[in-house]
Amino acid sequence: MKIESVDFFYLSMPEVTTEGDGSQDALVVRVAAGGHVGWGECEAAPLPSIAAFICPMSHGACRPVSDSVLGQRLDGPDDILRMSATLAYNSMDLLQAAHTWSGIEVAMWDLLGQVRGEPSWKLLGYDAAYPKLPYASVLFGADPQATFRRGQEMRGRGFRAAKFGWAPFGDSLEGDIAQLDAAREGLGPDGILLIDAGQIFGEDVEAAAARLDAMERNRVTFFEEPFHGSAYKAYSALRDRVKTVNTAGGEAAHNRHMAEHLIDFGRVGYIQIDCGRIGGLWPAKQVADYAAPRGVTYINHTFTSNLALSASMQPFAGLRDHVICEFPTTLKQLAVDMTRNHIVPDANGEIHVPDAPGLGIEIDPDALVRYGQEVEIKVGGKVLFSTASAA
Amino acid sequence: MKIESVDFFYLSMPEVTTEGDGSQDALVVRVAAGGHVGWGECEAAPLPSIAAFICPMSHGACRPVSDSVLGQRLDGPDDILRMSATLAYNSMDLLQAAHTWSGIEVAMWDLLGQVRGEPSWKLLGYDAAYPKLPYASVLFGADPQATFRRGQEMRGRGFRAAKFGWAPFGDSLEGDIAQLDAAREGLGPDGILLIDAGQIFGEDVEAAAARLDAMERNRVTFFEEPFHGSAYKAYSALRDRVKTVNTAGGEAAHNRHMAEHLIDFGRVGYIQIDCGRIGGLWPAKQVADYAAPRGVTYINHTFTSNLALSASMQPFAGLRDHVICEFPTTLKQLAVDMTRNHIVPDANGEIHVPDAPGLGIEIDPDALVRYGQEVEIKVGGKVLFSTASAA
Repeated sequence: MKIESVDFFYLSMPEVTTEGDGSQDALVVRVAAGGHVGWGECEAAPLPSIAAFICPMSHGACRPVSDSVLGQRLDGPDDILRMSATLAYNSMDLLQAAHTWSGIEVAMWDLLGQVRGEPSWKLLGYDAAYPKLPYASVLFGADPQATFRRGQEMRGRGFRAAKFGWAPFGDSLEGDIAQLDAAREGLGPDGILLIDAGQIFGEDVEAAAARLDAMERNRVTFFEEPFHGSAYKAYSALRDRVKTVNTAGGEAAHNRHMAEHLIDFGRVGYIQIDCGRIGGLWPAKQVADYAAPRGVTYINHTFTSNLALSASMQPFAGLRDHVICEFPTTLKQLAVDMTRNHIVPDANGEIHVPDAPGLGIEIDPDALVRYGQEVEIKVGGKVLFSTASAA
Repeated sequence: MKIESVDFFYLSMPEVTTEGDGSQDALVVRVAAGGHVGWGECEAAPLPSIAAFICPMSHGACRPVSDSVLGQRLDGPDDILRMSATLAYNSMDLLQAAHTWSGIEVAMWDLLGQVRGEPSWKLLGYDAAYPKLPYASVLFGADPQATFRRGQEMRGRGFRAAKFGWAPFGDSLEGDIAQLDAAREGLGPDGILLIDAGQIFGEDVEAAAARLDAMERNRVTFFEEPFHGSAYKAYSALRDRVKTVNTAGGEAAHNRHMAEHLIDFGRVGYIQIDCGRIGGLWPAKQVADYAAPRGVTYINHTFTSNLALSASMQPFAGLRDHVICEFPTTLKQLAVDMTRNHIVPDANGEIHVPDAPGLGIEIDPDALVRYGQEVEIKVGGKVLFSTASAA
């Protein structure tokens, strides 16, 4: 097969707010080869990611992503790895390339899965897929009382784990302690409690460490992204201060090296990988292979659609002991409507990666139209991009 | 002052080839505040960088760069640092943001320098600027004979140092050895010889190490980017194999953390910073402050215009002992015409950062028109970007 086309669909809710909710828009990728179609999603800013696909070349090491993809052979996993290596070299100076490529790479595994009638996790090398324990991924309430109610709600919905994140966490020590207590109280004594600081402490180890007592007392399982994603020294310093709480990070990694460095130099206990940013399923699988023997738990980062969720489960589907799984629970309607089928917890409160060809998720073309944002990019009077038909 | 406007000018040669020459196009940034104007340059893919400035917000941590800049106060260096921190937080999920911001940040230092009548390096905290020894930055010839002639030519032009880089280096061990011998022979026995592998060895330490004998014999001062910019372990492993040759890297760093990690974990001897990528002059100055006490030599990465060259000299202008300076010598006409004045070696073969307000480089608006590529970006029928007038 040869890659005939790569199309990008930029979806958006009518209104996009500053809340930390990634399901307010989406960049969906459709790859066609040999009469087959695969779908992927970039967890990235849509417009710059599209621009990185079609931009004119700047020089030999700053070529558009399309140069490494269109017309290329796609007969098996090795072809994906080859294209990935070509891209890394030919687009090394194009920063956004990794985010653009991620959605394309995911779509290729989906497409290959369709062709071979196998789930993508099998193509990645796993023999079996194990159930995951989804944690409800929610934002902190505006005050502790709202956080308490949100915890109760998630518990009522059957979640055995929940992650609270982002503002107002970090505003004040007193407020944060009250929020932590409220989250534990709402979730109940048995729930797995996770906290996401959304990088609010920059590199300030003391500020993050000041929250540790309340975290230990509330039996927080992991403390995610206290710092800037590259502040390895701060991560490592905090690691020396924790007792039972684990540190977690990695969602910003846009290549596997960055994730491995966060393990080696930042000494995180959980490595969180977003397939829609790190370059797709293969580098994510490499990180899983790197993490497991080092006692580091792999976990997905996902805050968009169920297409992205299925993609994000593939790289650690076969790791039986890496059970916690991020599961977006307050998706905007766009992300709900985007796919015809959905991954839902079973009676045991667990979720399963689809045992179906590719990612096992069906896109609804009507949703691509309904939420679609027409994009047109012209350079020197020439149209370089115009949104394709979703049909 | 308040920032009234930020305009981007995308310049391009009529033809852009795959050669490793960054002066084939340019993204020039004009910042206006309080009746003053400053200029900067992103060493980046122009179209995705523009898109990152004007794209619709995806969520609270994926806002366009413009959100952290337009309408902001700009009265002194602290305002630049404040905007930089805001951007790092508000655009943490927008990968291209660092490249876009870099040109804006440089333009702000230029503007502040105009207002205060002081060179940017003084605003950065240096009391004096010291001369730099420019190395001619050229590509390897297609064969050793062509490389020999290029070395002779640079020596004839008075250069006491030259760097040869990129393809065909890496094609074969035998070919590379012949290229290294030819470069030394052409440059003469006294010239400072530098080699840039352009990441050709990926993570393959043995492949890079196989070139070391020929490098030691030819007294190569540094061996630049043998590996992927994030392959710290490979850098560190190679460091253990060198005798007199230094390793060098860092041009891909898009924040100061990455450069510091390459020093700490990759153990490079020279840290090469591109102000048009790392986030501008301030993070570059921070890297210089970090490198110097650790015995690591700071050096600029520059392969575009003299505007970028002046910018790149500012962060280490005051470091007397960090003397080697990248100096693009085969600029495309675009990059020559873009500025009315140029930085040229003196009778002693040294160059001087301009002792003039800001960057001390004057833009030629006619060149912005002559080489200008009109860009128009529409989303949902609304024009989000249209190239501004250069007048």
